[in-house]
Amino acid sequence: MCLVTPTTGQTITCKAAVAWGPKAPLVIEEIQVEPPQAQEVRIKITHTSLCHSDVTFWEAPVEVFPRIFGHEAAGIVESVGEGVLDLKPGDHVIPVFTGECRNCKYCKSPRTNICANYAVDALRGTMKSDGRTRFSIQGKPIFHFMGTSTFSEYTVVDQAQVVKVDPTAPLDKICLLGCGIATGIGAVWKTAKVEAGASVAVFGLGAVGLAVIAGAKIAGASRIIAVDLNPAKFAKAKVFGATDFLNPKEHDKAIQCVIQEMTGGGVDYSFECVGNTSVMRSAYESCQPGWGKSVIVGVDGSNKMLEINPLEFFSGRIWTASVFGGFKCKSDLPDLVDKYMSKELEYDEMITHTRPFSRINEAFSLLQKGESLRCVIEVEA
Amino acid sequence: MCLVTPTTGQTITCKAAVAWGPKAPLVIEEIQVEPPQAQEVRIKITHTSLCHSDVTFWEAPVEVFPRIFGHEAAGIVESVGEGVLDLKPGDHVIPVFTGECRNCKYCKSPRTNICANYAVDALRGTMKSDGRTRFSIQGKPIFHFMGTSTFSEYTVVDQAQVVKVDPTAPLDKICLLGCGIATGIGAVWKTAKVEAGASVAVFGLGAVGLAVIAGAKIAGASRIIAVDLNPAKFAKAKVFGATDFLNPKEHDKAIQCVIQEMTGGGVDYSFECVGNTSVMRSAYESCQPGWGKSVIVGVDGSNKMLEINPLEFFSGRIWTASVFGGFKCKSDLPDLVDKYMSKELEYDEMITHTRPFSRINEAFSLLQKGESLRCVIEVEA
Ligand SMILES: [Zn+2]
Ligand SMILES: [Zn+2]
Ligand SMILES: [Zn+2]
Ligand SMILES: [Zn+2]
Repeated sequence: MCLVTPTTGQTITCKAAVAWGPKAPLVIEEIQVEPPQAQEVRIKITHTSLCHSDVTFWEAPVEVFPRIFGHEAAGIVESVGEGVLDLKPGDHVIPVFTGECRNCKYCKSPRTNICANYAVDALRGTMKSDGRTRFSIQGKPIFHFMGTSTFSEYTVVDQAQVVKVDPTAPLDKICLLGCGIATGIGAVWKTAKVEAGASVAVFGLGAVGLAVIAGAKIAGASRIIAVDLNPAKFAKAKVFGATDFLNPKEHDKAIQCVIQEMTGGGVDYSFECVGNTSVMRSAYESCQPGWGKSVIVGVDGSNKMLEINPLEFFSGRIWTASVFGGFKCKSDLPDLVDKYMSKELEYDEMITHTRPFSRINEAFSLLQKGESLRCVIEVEA
Repeated sequence: MCLVTPTTGQTITCKAAVAWGPKAPLVIEEIQVEPPQAQEVRIKITHTSLCHSDVTFWEAPVEVFPRIFGHEAAGIVESVGEGVLDLKPGDHVIPVFTGECRNCKYCKSPRTNICANYAVDALRGTMKSDGRTRFSIQGKPIFHFMGTSTFSEYTVVDQAQVVKVDPTAPLDKICLLGCGIATGIGAVWKTAKVEAGASVAVFGLGAVGLAVIAGAKIAGASRIIAVDLNPAKFAKAKVFGATDFLNPKEHDKAIQCVIQEMTGGGVDYSFECVGNTSVMRSAYESCQPGWGKSVIVGVDGSNKMLEINPLEFFSGRIWTASVFGGFKCKSDLPDLVDKYMSKELEYDEMITHTRPFSRINEAFSLLQKGESLRCVIEVEA
């Protein structure tokens, strides 16, 4: 088996979509990608989809520019650095924004998917090993994003963030498992542990919310209440398994009261997939006193605080959150790919658009306008 | 078997410690106690201990006076009303402030000890069935407290709040299982589910905090960190099983930082037994990201809010609360009594004082000054 490609050890010149500043349209540039250092992997990205966090940090007035965004993708290993034992050139992989080092006390515990060494850090723009970037344009460094930077024909990723998957799985579909779909499915299966017969409410019907619905249906939930301010989203929610549809604008009373009445006290599980503190509160209050569990999936970037009267905790409701669905990337993601292949998990309906790499900016405007769920960008020509 | 006592169906005249107004010393009065109505039980109280909530509501400027306090006690059934099937005169019982109707959807679920029909309501001063009191002095009604009102030689309690226990168990000891001890033990066993080898931090070393320590030791916790501003409390904490002792006043940095450093990240479980929002926050932050669980046991009556940045939930810590230790009174309390009898559970050291009924006000001042853990009042002469 040939483990060396012609480019191994060489700097590769290729195309990448570079963000030169906050909100500046991406520019397809010729960039240089250095070889992977020890414990790193260089990946040829074939497909990447656009997720909200890319937009959020592209819009953020931070110092980490120029930058290559992208964190939901799939590709093929081009070469590996020293000490990478579980990956080799030719492997089909999904890079993931939250790593699994397999050595820290969190990785060794079955109770969490936090990793002490590869925790999510959206403001880090360099590689962990040496604090440098692997991307440059004519010697000028270009920053990384989430350790993945998948809006590039080639990217360098720490091996702890690279997951080897079934090579027969279609890369243009399983790229979605790199963030949104896994996040929603895992919030249901791993974080909430929804059981057959349970009732569920889902706030926010973007790709993550729809993945929650799909996960709840697979788990056997008896009732899945879909909540969104935009009724145009209900049709798709129905496809994925929602049974009831609520538009808060169409009700005089707070939506949590409507849900409490519909369900005789509240749902067993609620999921906040918006990232808004006031929706988080509605979701919390929508669930059943005694045992209802409310899972925060959406990230509120506004730094607004939730106010809780401590007596509310005596209701017995549980409030928690889920990152990447509670999945450990290396341990759990291959199984999700297998479930996709066996059609236990279906989400092709989530892919509403595809675009060639040259038209990546259209993916941004489609998502911002709420016209797309997922737009898959064909990075490989 | 004789199911009728000479007093059955009769109003009983007996002694009770009546609070005539907020903070007014209790007065031992001759009162009238009506017979129990349907689904009610009249109990001859033999022993009652004083718990903080009695003091809290005795001090509160509410309208529910005159009132008979007391909610941690043991006694013997004198007579039962119509439809009471599981209790009969002569049964040894513990009245409990949180009932178990066995019919509502909460009682039917193993996941909670909330009861839709007998939820804790400290402001209710009458019986549920008819909104009247069973106590009076010369025709003037005296209000109930927590449905228990155990500072009386005889009291009337809803059958859902009366637990039949082993008649050989000493009433002067098992009275403590009516609130504080069960609350602390259950917070560890039922709510947190502390496992062998786990690390634990306990904030506040009153009777409930010490019961948490005792419960954690029985559960096999490897490290039990006792936290209190009063170092005089550490000796007793050691008796019950604490392994480390922290006085926040003796540390320059926040106590949660000290605990994080001592434990390499935080404890597996923390318990707030004070009832103070700032201690609740310390307890939360003292526990391990990824899986640490912080249980609020103390009640903050100040209506202060906890502020939480929703991003904090992504740490994977769990914040929850426990009422009566998560125990369903009728289903679970008899087993605690049995564990006391078999010495699996020992807490006699908690009883620091005893007083005759006539000196009940001394129990109040001992508790308020922090001089007692539990003072058992001998109601029966
Ligand atoms: Zn994402
Ligand atoms: Zn790790
Ligand atoms: Zn009930
Ligand atoms: Zn109490």
